[in-house]
Amino acid sequence: MIKVGIIGATGYAGGELVRILMNHKDVEIKWYGSRSYIDKKYFQVYRNMFEIVEDVCKDDNINELADQVDVIFTATPQGFLAGILTEEILNKVKIVDLSADYRIKDVAVYEKWYGIEHKSPQFIEEAVYGLCEINRGKINEKTRLVANPGCYTTCSILTAYPLVKEGLIDASTLIVDAKSGTSGAGRGAKVPNLYCEVNENIKAYGVASHRHTPEIEEQLGYAGGKEVVLNFTPHLVPMNRGILVTEYATLVKKADGSLPTYEEIKAAYDKYYANEKFVRVLEKGECPETKWVEGSNYVDVNFVIDERTGRIIMMGALDNLVKGAAGQAVQNMNILFGLDEAAGLDLIPCFP
Amino acid sequence: MIKVGIIGATGYAGGELVRILMNHKDVEIKWYGSRSYIDKKYFQVYRNMFEIVEDVCKDDNINELADQVDVIFTATPQGFLAGILTEEILNKVKIVDLSADYRIKDVAVYEKWYGIEHKSPQFIEEAVYGLCEINRGKINEKTRLVANPGCYTTCSILTAYPLVKEGLIDASTLIVDAKSGTSGAGRGAKVPNLYCEVNENIKAYGVASHRHTPEIEEQLGYAGGKEVVLNFTPHLVPMNRGILVTEYATLVKKADGSLPTYEEIKAAYDKYYANEKFVRVLEKGECPETKWVEGSNYVDVNFVIDERTGRIIMMGALDNLVKGAAGQAVQNMNILFGLDEAAGLDLIPCFP
Amino acid sequence: MIKVGIIGATGYAGGELVRILMNHKDVEIKWYGSRSYIDKKYFQVYRNMFEIVEDVCKDDNINELADQVDVIFTATPQGFLAGILTEEILNKVKIVDLSADYRIKDVAVYEKWYGIEHKSPQFIEEAVYGLCEINRGKINEKTRLVANPGCYTTCSILTAYPLVKEGLIDASTLIVDAKSGTSGAGRGAKVPNLYCEVNENIKAYGVASHRHTPEIEEQLGYAGGKEVVLNFTPHLVPMNRGILVTEYATLVKKADGSLPTYEEIKAAYDKYYANEKFVRVLEKGECPETKWVEGSNYVDVNFVIDERTGRIIMMGALDNLVKGAAGQAVQNMNILFGLDEAAGLDLIPCFP
Amino acid sequence: MIKVGIIGATGYAGGELVRILMNHKDVEIKWYGSRSYIDKKYFQVYRNMFEIVEDVCKDDNINELADQVDVIFTATPQGFLAGILTEEILNKVKIVDLSADYRIKDVAVYEKWYGIEHKSPQFIEEAVYGLCEINRGKINEKTRLVANPGCYTTCSILTAYPLVKEGLIDASTLIVDAKSGTSGAGRGAKVPNLYCEVNENIKAYGVASHRHTPEIEEQLGYAGGKEVVLNFTPHLVPMNRGILVTEYATLVKKADGSLPTYEEIKAAYDKYYANEKFVRVLEKGECPETKWVEGSNYVDVNFVIDERTGRIIMMGALDNLVKGAAGQAVQNMNILFGLDEAAGLDLIPCFP
Repeated sequence: MIKVGIIGATGYAGGELVRILMNHKDVEIKWYGSRSYIDKKYFQVYRNMFEIVEDVCKDDNINELADQVDVIFTATPQGFLAGILTEEILNKVKIVDLSADYRIKDVAVYEKWYGIEHKSPQFIEEAVYGLCEINRGKINEKTRLVANPGCYTTCSILTAYPLVKEGLIDASTLIVDAKSGTSGAGRGAKVPNLYCEVNENIKAYGVASHRHTPEIEEQLGYAGGKEVVLNFTPHLVPMNRGILVTEYATLVKKADGSLPTYEEIKAAYDKYYANEKFVRVLEKGECPETKWVEGSNYVDVNFVIDERTGRIIMMGALDNLVKGAAGQAVQNMNILFGLDEAAGLDLIPCFP
Repeated sequence: MIKVGIIGATGYAGGELVRILMNHKDVEIKWYGSRSYIDKKYFQVYRNMFEIVEDVCKDDNINELADQVDVIFTATPQGFLAGILTEEILNKVKIVDLSADYRIKDVAVYEKWYGIEHKSPQFIEEAVYGLCEINRGKINEKTRLVANPGCYTTCSILTAYPLVKEGLIDASTLIVDAKSGTSGAGRGAKVPNLYCEVNENIKAYGVASHRHTPEIEEQLGYAGGKEVVLNFTPHLVPMNRGILVTEYATLVKKADGSLPTYEEIKAAYDKYYANEKFVRVLEKGECPETKWVEGSNYVDVNFVIDERTGRIIMMGALDNLVKGAAGQAVQNMNILFGLDEAAGLDLIPCFP
Repeated sequence: MIKVGIIGATGYAGGELVRILMNHKDVEIKWYGSRSYIDKKYFQVYRNMFEIVEDVCKDDNINELADQVDVIFTATPQGFLAGILTEEILNKVKIVDLSADYRIKDVAVYEKWYGIEHKSPQFIEEAVYGLCEINRGKINEKTRLVANPGCYTTCSILTAYPLVKEGLIDASTLIVDAKSGTSGAGRGAKVPNLYCEVNENIKAYGVASHRHTPEIEEQLGYAGGKEVVLNFTPHLVPMNRGILVTEYATLVKKADGSLPTYEEIKAAYDKYYANEKFVRVLEKGECPETKWVEGSNYVDVNFVIDERTGRIIMMGALDNLVKGAAGQAVQNMNILFGLDEAAGLDLIPCFP
Repeated sequence: MIKVGIIGATGYAGGELVRILMNHKDVEIKWYGSRSYIDKKYFQVYRNMFEIVEDVCKDDNINELADQVDVIFTATPQGFLAGILTEEILNKVKIVDLSADYRIKDVAVYEKWYGIEHKSPQFIEEAVYGLCEINRGKINEKTRLVANPGCYTTCSILTAYPLVKEGLIDASTLIVDAKSGTSGAGRGAKVPNLYCEVNENIKAYGVASHRHTPEIEEQLGYAGGKEVVLNFTPHLVPMNRGILVTEYATLVKKADGSLPTYEEIKAAYDKYYANEKFVRVLEKGECPETKWVEGSNYVDVNFVIDERTGRIIMMGALDNLVKGAAGQAVQNMNILFGLDEAAGLDLIPCFP
């Protein structure tokens, strides 16, 4: 039985971790950390957990926690983990960090986009970027620190990855137009997240400045073997869960000047995803819908070639709280402990 | 391994049966019946099932189906099962009927409220009304036919049952004001169910004439030991899932003329539900919310005593597709086959 | 040109006042009062007003304001106006108060339900309860203070008023089950009003304790000529605007023991509403929908008689920000100044 | 008094025409044409119009209608008007066509994208493309036929027009990612438009093949003085009204190799829109939100320059039923009859 602690258990991602781990047979949650609700019953914060979770919320004393559990999930604000992490902690416990603290290898880039100083850059090198389908080979029972990818990022990268990797698109032309449900904004009480402000409304935000941009660029840069600079534009959509990305790029013409065919592009996706349980390459002509993956760990991807413009339109959909946060974190935990990667993640998408 | 057939697998309740049964370890779905989509891949009707269900939809030949499976779920329009059911079929297979065909014992009442002739009244007597928490004692491995309760009905009955049973309220004063998500209206393409007609809107419908009324009256009549006539008013709410009932009744005064206390009412609820996994009597002061049970088989109930009017306000919430349809059907199946009643129903409510 | 000041111009009701008054030909808004946004451009608080309103927000100095305008609308928290109102102010300016401070004649009742001391009870007697369809005879150019009714209250009272007034129902049996959109909760940043908490959810709140209860009771008491005690249960619905009430009462039997007929009840509604522009008694069989009145000053009402239980089910729908707040306030202003009562209120309901 | 006939009065765009024209002082609606609801009271189709519109629906006999009115709005399916329009009709009455029949000058392009034969290409040349802000100079009292632009199109063109016209962007790099509320899909009863299918969901559709593409290309081609080929991707968003477009293009560098500045781009927008009542160029840093224009005839536009990629991100928002359909049609009618262009269009955006 793997003993688990969660710091930030009362945010939306923390709540989703609890939902998933409650049905994971090899796991026992020992610590529900929540600075805001210390000593309150967890089910009093999330009433859906009434008669399911009896524990009370504890503080975020990571040193004490590290003695009691095998793995800690940190679903905490940017900078929190970086500010408290020590070699001593990492010697005692594995950490899957759902924040961005260790996702970006270049600390200057992190500090520029996040606007905060990184307090423990010495662990960045060691941290594995936990995009399981791409990096699982780098994660094993010796790994101490996993940087769990962001929601926008997971969706954006997986949607374009095979084509960047195979050199089928010109990555310098890549544009990512992303649409997210509102749970991505967290449970903080702010006017722009009130029901009446979000409902019956759609808007872009963080245009040309959203923090997930360098994370996407870095990972696609590794895939393509050279630096990628791209446009990423997030939008807020009136729904609870789900991210949809629509990505545009110019196709690299073949030697004879023609565009790659549908079959050639499809083959590239299949090369990387045919054996991936959690990435579904849809049938020709089907556009991903966030509803088809809701509540599950799936990412659905597909594409359309536009012969007129020479561009390809790639699309991807996932549940931002599952594959975009808690589900992927559990997937990483499974790999860390040598379990079946899908353990506890047999979540059938819920429709309607 | 229990072999299962579903007739009406492509309606919303049928889809939910598939979602639940896919994670039920003792079950194998052998037949996805759908008159509208014969020979079509099931996942082409419900794209969430892509790479999860590979089967094609079959017709609704119940005689053939009865030879192949152990239990049939019928999620079909009113009158369908009554029109085709035979002794021969019941000798071969168990049936859990999600329609109303065998719920009402008085065939005249059925025919009046549903406006159709009952084609096989000879099976009504035998059918067990599958409200598990109340009738599980009547269901066993010899039971051939279970009439699975309706969504409004399950919620309405369970919310008032202990108080009617214990004589704490005057059942002749009972008023049920019910609010339902839109999946209860089914997947038929009708203008009133279009997004733009339902969204940003609420309305009552079927006022004083809704078909679930006699079902509630009959069951509460059994509980109280005398006929119950009540008001039931359903409302359509702009959300996918969930039913909330708000019920009003005059409390029966005690011998000294005083009203029952909070503790006395609470004791009545606990008497019937304290050991029920799927009925949660909330903490004092908490009002049930449909979101707290979404995707799960729970019913949440609670109450407030109004000293000023001498009435009690009872509230109940469930997911109309789970405890109000497919989940309860699986619960009945578990009882029929002697399995753990909660097998396959360890569904944690999904929030947000 | 009537000069108008608004205190609380940046709440949802204040914003709706601005929307309506901008198209009122006889009105000029001179003062956008907002304690939270002093010196900020009004359109920076409500971006829909960009290039429409150029003014900046001012403080809530009612004494200074009273010198500059003919009428003040106060869309302020409970107790605010009562705490600052003076004879001197009322001698200079008319006030339409959208808060509850002067709605309830019995100050003890006010203080009990609102839990605050009333700081200026000397003005309660003078204040006219501005439910225009019922009290317009009491409002004229000499009136100084109008207590504008609440949203739940307007809907609840108008739906039952003719039947209570005519003695057709037993008011002691009256139960009001009300459903409201989320704008009624205001623009305060609180977790329960976040998009993800309200969306896909419905719940009751304030059960047997909501502050609008005594206001409904008092007004229906006047109508029926004797005290009324009733149940009022509000519910929060995932939509921006709209209130629907479903009301239940036992019909008073006629001398021969029979129930009143549809025609007799309809005649009672028509007696009071046939000439009312803003109250629409729907055609037989039609149930009010909040969508049909959205954005307008209409109240739609209708009823169904249930012969089985001897009860009548009354239904009413309005837009909580218009007839339930700003629209009715403008209607009162029109009466106060001798204008056409409907001036500026020719708002066609917006569908979809 | 301008006499108006509407063919297709019971679709969503037709309903919006009625809502707007009811408050237009110079207009009288003489004919509510609706093939599906002939002889039915209009308010029985749209209950919001109860006690507002008393007329019954009539057929779509355009010849008879042309004798009775001054202008006909056709809110009809593609090909309908083209199939019945004659010289005789145009000699009697002006027509504002909300369908696409006369929007595209090249009939071959029309027939390719719409997949139907054009039955009256002889009128295409004469028809004026009624994008008022750009083409009002071509519309006057002699104009007989106005092709009212589509909803996606109006938003897409106006958002990019000044920059294409001024040569500030490379039009060959233009990508339009558009998001629409569901009323754009019409009132037809189809499964994909059901509440439960649209709610809590977002998807792209018509990728690289949507019919509005050539209309955008043609108009921006005129603006830029050369053919434009672009990507247009529409998405369905769970809200009733509103279109948001996010457009991407590479900025044309200045002679010194630098990018245009914010001020230069802003000046280009102001050159065309500073005096336009219905186009609002937002303050720096503000992203358009569909909610800020809901119910009104405004288009809100703004932009962000991304120095990193050399691209500009342009954004535009409008209400698809107003500026995207009925509002613009009324604006065109006003121009046709020499009225104030904004007559009847003083619609304040409704928030929340």
